[in-house]
Amino acid sequence: MIGEQMIRFVADLYPICRSITGDGVRQTLAKVGERIPLQIHEVPTGTQVFDWTVPREWNIRDAWIKDPHGRKIVDFQHLNLHVLNYSVPVHKKVSLAPLKEHLFTLPDQPGLVPYRTSYYKEAWGFCMAHHQWLSLEEGEYEVCIDSTLEDGSLTYGECFLKGETEREVLISCHVCHPSLCNDNLSGLAVCTFLAEELARASRRLSYRFLFIPGTIGSITWLARNDSSRMTNRITAGLVAANLGDPGHFHYKKTRQGDAEIDRAVLQVLRGEEHGVEDFVPFGYDERQYSSPGFNLPVGSLTRTPYGRYPEYHTSADNLDFIQSASLEASLQTYLSVMKVLEGNRRYLNLNPKCEPQLGRRGLYRTIGGDDSGRQRELALLWVLNLSDGEHGLLDIAE
Amino acid sequence: MIGEQMIRFVADLYPICRSITGDGVRQTLAKVGERIPLQIHEVPTGTQVFDWTVPREWNIRDAWIKDPHGRKIVDFQHLNLHVLNYSVPVHKKVSLAPLKEHLFTLPDQPGLVPYRTSYYKEAWGFCMAHHQWLSLEEGEYEVCIDSTLEDGSLTYGECFLKGETEREVLISCHVCHPSLCNDNLSGLAVCTFLAEELARASRRLSYRFLFIPGTIGSITWLARNDSSRMTNRITAGLVAANLGDPGHFHYKKTRQGDAEIDRAVLQVLRGEEHGVEDFVPFGYDERQYSSPGFNLPVGSLTRTPYGRYPEYHTSADNLDFIQSASLEASLQTYLSVMKVLEGNRRYLNLNPKCEPQLGRRGLYRTIGGDDSGRQRELALLWVLNLSDGEHGLLDIAE
Amino acid sequence: MIGEQMIRFVADLYPICRSITGDGVRQTLAKVGERIPLQIHEVPTGTQVFDWTVPREWNIRDAWIKDPHGRKIVDFQHLNLHVLNYSVPVHKKVSLAPLKEHLFTLPDQPGLVPYRTSYYKEAWGFCMAHHQWLSLEEGEYEVCIDSTLEDGSLTYGECFLKGETEREVLISCHVCHPSLCNDNLSGLAVCTFLAEELARASRRLSYRFLFIPGTIGSITWLARNDSSRMTNRITAGLVAANLGDPGHFHYKKTRQGDAEIDRAVLQVLRGEEHGVEDFVPFGYDERQYSSPGFNLPVGSLTRTPYGRYPEYHTSADNLDFIQSASLEASLQTYLSVMKVLEGNRRYLNLNPKCEPQLGRRGLYRTIGGDDSGRQRELALLWVLNLSDGEHGLLDIAE
Repeated sequence: MIGEQMIRFVADLYPICRSITGDGVRQTLAKVGERIPLQIHEVPTGTQVFDWTVPREWNIRDAWIKDPHGRKIVDFQHLNLHVLNYSVPVHKKVSLAPLKEHLFTLPDQPGLVPYRTSYYKEAWGFCMAHHQWLSLEEGEYEVCIDSTLEDGSLTYGECFLKGETEREVLISCHVCHPSLCNDNLSGLAVCTFLAEELARASRRLSYRFLFIPGTIGSITWLARNDSSRMTNRITAGLVAANLGDPGHFHYKKTRQGDAEIDRAVLQVLRGEEHGVEDFVPFGYDERQYSSPGFNLPVGSLTRTPYGRYPEYHTSADNLDFIQSASLEASLQTYLSVMKVLEGNRRYLNLNPKCEPQLGRRGLYRTIGGDDSGRQRELALLWVLNLSDGEHGLLDIAE
Repeated sequence: MIGEQMIRFVADLYPICRSITGDGVRQTLAKVGERIPLQIHEVPTGTQVFDWTVPREWNIRDAWIKDPHGRKIVDFQHLNLHVLNYSVPVHKKVSLAPLKEHLFTLPDQPGLVPYRTSYYKEAWGFCMAHHQWLSLEEGEYEVCIDSTLEDGSLTYGECFLKGETEREVLISCHVCHPSLCNDNLSGLAVCTFLAEELARASRRLSYRFLFIPGTIGSITWLARNDSSRMTNRITAGLVAANLGDPGHFHYKKTRQGDAEIDRAVLQVLRGEEHGVEDFVPFGYDERQYSSPGFNLPVGSLTRTPYGRYPEYHTSADNLDFIQSASLEASLQTYLSVMKVLEGNRRYLNLNPKCEPQLGRRGLYRTIGGDDSGRQRELALLWVLNLSDGEHGLLDIAE
Repeated sequence: MIGEQMIRFVADLYPICRSITGDGVRQTLAKVGERIPLQIHEVPTGTQVFDWTVPREWNIRDAWIKDPHGRKIVDFQHLNLHVLNYSVPVHKKVSLAPLKEHLFTLPDQPGLVPYRTSYYKEAWGFCMAHHQWLSLEEGEYEVCIDSTLEDGSLTYGECFLKGETEREVLISCHVCHPSLCNDNLSGLAVCTFLAEELARASRRLSYRFLFIPGTIGSITWLARNDSSRMTNRITAGLVAANLGDPGHFHYKKTRQGDAEIDRAVLQVLRGEEHGVEDFVPFGYDERQYSSPGFNLPVGSLTRTPYGRYPEYHTSADNLDFIQSASLEASLQTYLSVMKVLEGNRRYLNLNPKCEPQLGRRGLYRTIGGDDSGRQRELALLWVLNLSDGEHGLLDIAE
């Protein structure tokens, strides 16, 4: 049932043309903010964030190509992937050969429209199916991209759920992809619904959810929160993406490799098929959280990783590709991981010398010599034995 | 030959009805004391030992069931396993159905009498073969258990063999099982004969043998010797049990997992078939020695572990089950382990810079270029190379 | 081409009768000194070097056996292996039976003359093919060894190439074997040509080449340089030998087992067939460098290790056995290892917080969403990510 709600949430966000800045992000965050308490940040164009600069804000209203007969053969209104994301405005006539220098296709997947961006180099372009590209006739085309690239701001959302302690779990997802469901909206949905659940629960730990444009968003957040007091609080973190496809779970470890979050995720995934890989400095925003100057314990829990399913970054990553059951199971898995983190305390056996007398407390068999019930007793004895102040419950479970 | 002596020792102890307290333990320790210097401790009922309390003392003189025809069908004098160990006194007539609530059998091993106890909950009962149980007819039975459960004391024996240093090896066995040979008496025999051998030898290390009732005995000993000065002396330890059956050796490691005793035992067992397992907080008294408040380096060296042979805790664990060859080889193996501990010193190569000239000392081949005798020379060179103050002989052997 | 030069160098040295002292070593070092700056050290007989004493100097002019018919059947001028190395002078007549006590052969390789020595016990003897030994007839033989064993000195050569830093790489080879090509001269050639190459290059590290008699030579060098100031400079080292045979490379690790040199060699050998083994206190002079009083990080990089090829220490280890291609590849491999050591710096990412903007610097794809060129970018990102002051380039490569 919650899976169906998640699908509807994704469907609602699907048509919006997001990018790393602009109104698409604002509209998206507004819908997230209807479900959870979300603080919206606007960071002006030109702000220096470490080695980077917040870019000009991009907005787009329309874009199309008309063929030599005046027919619209590519229409942004129909599918926003058709425009090279961050295209500068253009409106002119152009013959086929020079037009082709601005067209992007997928020759190996000729029926699909690719997703392409050009954030940091001024360019304009269109994406289309390779089939269509092959059928383009000679002649003069009219191209129009009604966009603006102007000073403005970069927008991101932050949802902070305070717990009993200051120790924080960071959950981060990117909100910069236009009409792509698994890569982007599935993560957005899991994060939103997860925050909604945790907001209702009692929390030992604090939780910080970031809804940010990829790369520049996490860099901006880190730059604005770059004090050891802030980042030292982050005791665990996950980057959420690709959580709606039917593939099994895949965990990419933190740079540290054996952080609490690594062990918590693997504990939860134990017993079901899943993939694991070590940290590599590539991928989503874990790249920034794990840069050597921060080295935060942030892993990434996905289903099929980016780039490993044929629908990735194409028009086939649409509402047909994701499944409500997958979204729901992803949410449950994230909740289970949070539960392990919440529960992973270190207990201290107050009766550390010899075993306490369990029988006296009704926790033990009374007729000796019999073997039944040993499993439960053994669990009790392990907890008592390892509660020496050096092992958390996660250690004991392992 | 020593194996035959061990068998006779076991046979002598077999008929005694031991329990965790009472005269059976005293008689048993008296026989041990005939062979080795043994200090007998009596700890009064009601003494608080950590979370536990020394129980009332149990003694038994007779027990039987008479069938509706007045025939004794179960007789303690014939086999002391017939009585539920620590049964409170009873003498009354009872019909079959309520009687059955006090009868314990082994449906899967219908010819054998089980061993059952009820130390910490007042109860009475009998154990019998399931075959017999099936043949019980309706009618009125007469049951009698002529036991007492009264204030008294818990009895244990301690044999301390002082060596050149204060560092102690702890060897512990339980003395609380009635007529059971492998589980109990084999360990008792190995400990007794081992102490006898070590008493005659020159010793670098000190040795402390404990002959104690299981669980409450080790808890009592630890409670009475709970000072770091005392327990810090214990540098290695073994819990001895199940040492007379024909199975191969099995070693359960200390909680620390790589203590000197772990490495010494595995060094000795190398080259013969044997089992090894990590510490679990279950089993014999290693559970208490390894509780987090002590964490002593005590492992357990047995043959077939408890519960893994069908005769375990049944009337089939009798004099036919144990073998003199097994007992003797168990004793030899314990002696070998002690020899490794005795010999495991750290030597310091007083000529650490470059190799000493072995040839000058007649320890080396004089005609170079030839390959014979290399194995012996290599051993010499390893000892010299690793005698750097950081490696003991056991490290070097490994 | 350089392989051919190396072969000619070996051929030039082949006829010289080397030993652990004497003019053979001096002549050999003179030829090495024609190619590289070499300091010659003379250490007087009787000098105490740790547990050893520098022996008397041995020189030999001639040696032969004449059969009962007066025919020279063994002639040092023909092959210097025929004399037991370090034989005391002798000139007398002797019948067959007592003569045989002074003859050394290889019954399993009846066509080959063995190499035998008696440095530290006064003796005389001859080595011959077992075939010849079998054909010796009864009668009186005349034996002559025109040698001297007198006070003199032990000679060794040292080539020091100063670099930008004081940290030194030690390269050591033995120069005490007479006409044996792979065991001795191949190592001598690789060291000489390597020093020649490095002398021409700019060097961050300093290099120290030792051309020394085996065992007594390294002991003497260590004794004369036994100050922590000197030996602490040695940051890596290799013992060179057996580098001209056609076998693949074989690396014997340092006593430390994971020193920088171990990792550098294994990094270079990665991708070609090779053998690796842990340190054992046997072999060449790594035994002395790795004695516990020094424990220097010195491994040994050879082709087929000593004793594992049938030509070893026989007359078959001659100019036919070694190959110019093997010598040249050995030199190249040593050079590659030195290059890794030279390059293994720790860089510090000066932009450690988040990734630097590679796109702005032309180091990154401008159209996002495409997957080409990822391998190169990933390498860039790894270098940036791990340049945290704790990882050297060797760590990153691994």
